[in-house]
Amino acid sequence: MIIIGAGATGMAIATSLTRHSHHSITIFSTDRHTAYSQCGMPFAIGGQIDSLDSLVLREPKTFRDMGIDLRLETRVDSIDIEQKTVTSAGEKYPYDKLVIATGSSPIIPPIPGTSLENVLTLRTLSDAKRIEKALENTSNVVIIGGGSIGAEMAAATSQRNVDTTLINRSTSILSHNLDPDMADIVHEHLSSLGVKVITGYAPGSINGEKEVNSVTIASSEFPADLVILSTGVSPENKLASDAGIDIGETGGIIVDNYLQPSVNGMICKDIYCGGECVEVHDTITGKAMLSQVASTARRMAGIITNNLTSVSTEFGPILNPWVAVIGELQVGTTGITSKKAMENDIKIVTGLATGSTRADYYPGGKQLFIKLIFSEQYLVGAQVVGGEGVKERIDALTLAINKKTTVEELANIETCYAPPVSMLIDPVSFAAKGALKKMSKRRS
Amino acid sequence: MIIIGAGATGMAIATSLTRHSHHSITIFSTDRHTAYSQCGMPFAIGGQIDSLDSLVLREPKTFRDMGIDLRLETRVDSIDIEQKTVTSAGEKYPYDKLVIATGSSPIIPPIPGTSLENVLTLRTLSDAKRIEKALENTSNVVIIGGGSIGAEMAAATSQRNVDTTLINRSTSILSHNLDPDMADIVHEHLSSLGVKVITGYAPGSINGEKEVNSVTIASSEFPADLVILSTGVSPENKLASDAGIDIGETGGIIVDNYLQPSVNGMICKDIYCGGECVEVHDTITGKAMLSQVASTARRMAGIITNNLTSVSTEFGPILNPWVAVIGELQVGTTGITSKKAMENDIKIVTGLATGSTRADYYPGGKQLFIKLIFSEQYLVGAQVVGGEGVKERIDALTLAINKKTTVEELANIETCYAPPVSMLIDPVSFAAKGALKKMSKRRS
Ligand SMILES: Cc1cc2nc3c(=O)[nH]c(=O)nc-3n(C[C@H](O)[C@H](O)[C@H](O)COP(=O)(O)OP(=O)(O)OC[C@H]3O[C@@H](n4cnc5c(N)ncnc54)[C@H](O)[C@@H]3O)c2cc1C
Ligand SMILES: Cc1cc2nc3c(=O)[nH]c(=O)nc-3n(C[C@H](O)[C@H](O)[C@H](O)COP(=O)(O)OP(=O)(O)OC[C@H]3O[C@@H](n4cnc5c(N)ncnc54)[C@H](O)[C@@H]3O)c2cc1C
Repeated sequence: MIIIGAGATGMAIATSLTRHSHHSITIFSTDRHTAYSQCGMPFAIGGQIDSLDSLVLREPKTFRDMGIDLRLETRVDSIDIEQKTVTSAGEKYPYDKLVIATGSSPIIPPIPGTSLENVLTLRTLSDAKRIEKALENTSNVVIIGGGSIGAEMAAATSQRNVDTTLINRSTSILSHNLDPDMADIVHEHLSSLGVKVITGYAPGSINGEKEVNSVTIASSEFPADLVILSTGVSPENKLASDAGIDIGETGGIIVDNYLQPSVNGMICKDIYCGGECVEVHDTITGKAMLSQVASTARRMAGIITNNLTSVSTEFGPILNPWVAVIGELQVGTTGITSKKAMENDIKIVTGLATGSTRADYYPGGKQLFIKLIFSEQYLVGAQVVGGEGVKERIDALTLAINKKTTVEELANIETCYAPPVSMLIDPVSFAAKGALKKMSKRRS
Repeated sequence: MIIIGAGATGMAIATSLTRHSHHSITIFSTDRHTAYSQCGMPFAIGGQIDSLDSLVLREPKTFRDMGIDLRLETRVDSIDIEQKTVTSAGEKYPYDKLVIATGSSPIIPPIPGTSLENVLTLRTLSDAKRIEKALENTSNVVIIGGGSIGAEMAAATSQRNVDTTLINRSTSILSHNLDPDMADIVHEHLSSLGVKVITGYAPGSINGEKEVNSVTIASSEFPADLVILSTGVSPENKLASDAGIDIGETGGIIVDNYLQPSVNGMICKDIYCGGECVEVHDTITGKAMLSQVASTARRMAGIITNNLTSVSTEFGPILNPWVAVIGELQVGTTGITSKKAMENDIKIVTGLATGSTRADYYPGGKQLFIKLIFSEQYLVGAQVVGGEGVKERIDALTLAINKKTTVEELANIETCYAPPVSMLIDPVSFAAKGALKKMSKRRS
């Protein structure tokens, strides 16, 4: 069988399959490296992790020793679904089963100057190495795009004492993941780290001769020896689309519950698609969406492995829980934001609470900010920002949404307590109580 | 109105009521202090918190300024339900509403020598001060009882470099909360802190002239300048029982869903009972049980406050989620243990996993041990031991049990990921997958 893409999805499938089956596996990747943690790159650049090289979890040789025919820096140019072959560098490779796991590519914003030297994106380990190298001679970095990667990178470069400007088109950062009130907490934290955060502006141009030397924002010029473009990614769908595979409005490959694509609506029975190149569905709105997190990619890899080894398993709609670590803050979301609710005409009631991760008198407690979003009594979204305990609360709240938990249930939720690890009542309960109060006021 | 008991339950009710109503509130307590954190005492003794005094969250004056008639060191001797009065020091006090929140008292084990000097229990702040004082001249402490308080105290005294022996009657410590395999992890950790943990033995006698000087365990003598008895607590039910109020088999006061007691089965409409003195019910087994955690007491206080202010609210059965911090380990449980399942003829399948709280390559990750207990596909119990992220996972798993989550749902649970705060797949999912594998083997 053939796997296109040796990223999070492709490699997880390949290694799991070696444990299960006799498949001969060939895996192609345009990337020069494999089996490294993309998600760790901002922390290697920020200095929390020794070096970028420690993100490489296994060497190519390990996979080859497992019997996987791993072809790095090798692009697949086309797929022929009729003939069941793929073509790479003019050569045809037949497959019995094919997995498309081509991920996404960074979007280059349509502004002048993006092809100047030291205007970089961050997706692969090679990208990270280029940024690392450029940072050696950088006094000023301008990061364009205040999403997850932009914000993590702004924290990272400021931690390296590089003068950092983060510019974000919408009026609040992390706008896909957080409501403005929650984003403000992160904004302030970035400011406290020394990052100049500029919101509500898109850059006019990136300027320089050969190398970048400034970025024009609202007719002011900001000096820059390095520009990092982090204005989002779009699904790598060209191979699939050229082969006639149906592509959704989001740009992701349309798949059925078994993660199989279709040509003109007819399922391609020998092909599976997983990871960021695939279109998924939102549990709350039912709409098509993209999931750009490794945790979804990894769950898809598990489903595809099952289906390839005859354990028929389905992939359902998702809440797309997300967490990022930005400086000292952990920031997480699950389900829909207020903005998404509005776009989908979903009436919501929100509840907010602040709290701590320890008893007041216990040293070392970190602040927690909780926002819960309810629709018709049910939890449909949650945002948590704090110094610790964020990822676990997002996971719990994801379960709460999936299991149709009501505001009353969350207000009276049974939680445990010990002074070094919690408050007597968890702030999640307070946030639900806040929403409940608003609801009963509206009713009366 | 009158509240008997100025502990976690009584004071929470009193302070909430001042915000709600015109009630004149008199609150009696045998304790010399009020509004302090019992739960923090082991950590003040262990040195993580500055001093025992910092556990006092508010001074008596604060409550008196709020209009609460707070009577410390004042025992209520009897209740007359017909006349609606309580008697204290020969004086009668009429009430319109009465709250009984008398808590529990330490059980003194039936062995010779428990009345010697420096044989102490730990329930009140005065108890903690006595222990603190005794520790000034203590080289050897023997702690009798390896439950939650015994284990926390063993960590605390060993952290003070006092030679510490912990003796536990059953063959594994924390046997109410943890299965032996999970308890072993805590046992080993206590040993690594220098605690001598002796399991499977009860002490024969506590020896000394006036002061304790040794404890006899299995015919060996262990030197001891201080003995801490932590062999459990029993509900303080005498007042209620003398007044004719129905007491359950557990020793707790029988209450209805509104937390109202009864006399010969007839509800006492002006009385509410809350906290450790009350009998509650187990969500899984349906059986009567006691809950000896502040988090339950606090939830009961909320219910009673609602019912006293005409917001009729019910208290349901509980999973009794529990967490303790023992040295560097966080230890938690929710729902039933394997032992409780066996006692109740519940057939179970368990799933175990170990994991970390960070990506492998990210410095500072702590180990996590997860045990999930399923009955008929549904989660009915969970135990988590680890360096961080325990309380939050116990809370999530408590919700999972309450919302009837299946093993398949937990195996495929949507969780979020970032390298500084998690593994790509949460170990909870691995534990569920382990159980699932066992189940499908049994089926085939
Ligand atoms: C800086 C950064 C930080 C991140 N942090 C987090 C985080 O904290 N948490 C989280 O959950 N997610 C995070 N992510 C996202 C996560 O890394 C991705 O969601 C995940 O890697 C997607 O996996 P994938 O397999 O779909 O794509 P990828 O891992 O990108 O793999 C795609 C593969 O396809 C190959 N390919 C594409 N086209 C072809 C072709 N024509 N021929 C051959 N090969 C081809 C590519 O070379 C690549 O190997 C982060 C991403 C980045 C960049
Ligand atoms: C060392 C220690 C550590 C703990 N750690 C934790 C933890 O980490 N997490 C957790 O959830 N729980 C913990 N607990 C348990 C928690 O403290 C109790 O569950 C909680 O305090 C119970 O509240 P209560 O109101 O029922 O009883 P209490 O707080 O004990 O209050 C009972 C009150 O009744 C009074 N009283 C009794 N009889 C009379 C009478 N006849 N007349 C007048 N007054 C009377 C007493 O003086 C007292 O003020 C710990 C307990 C101890 C001792």
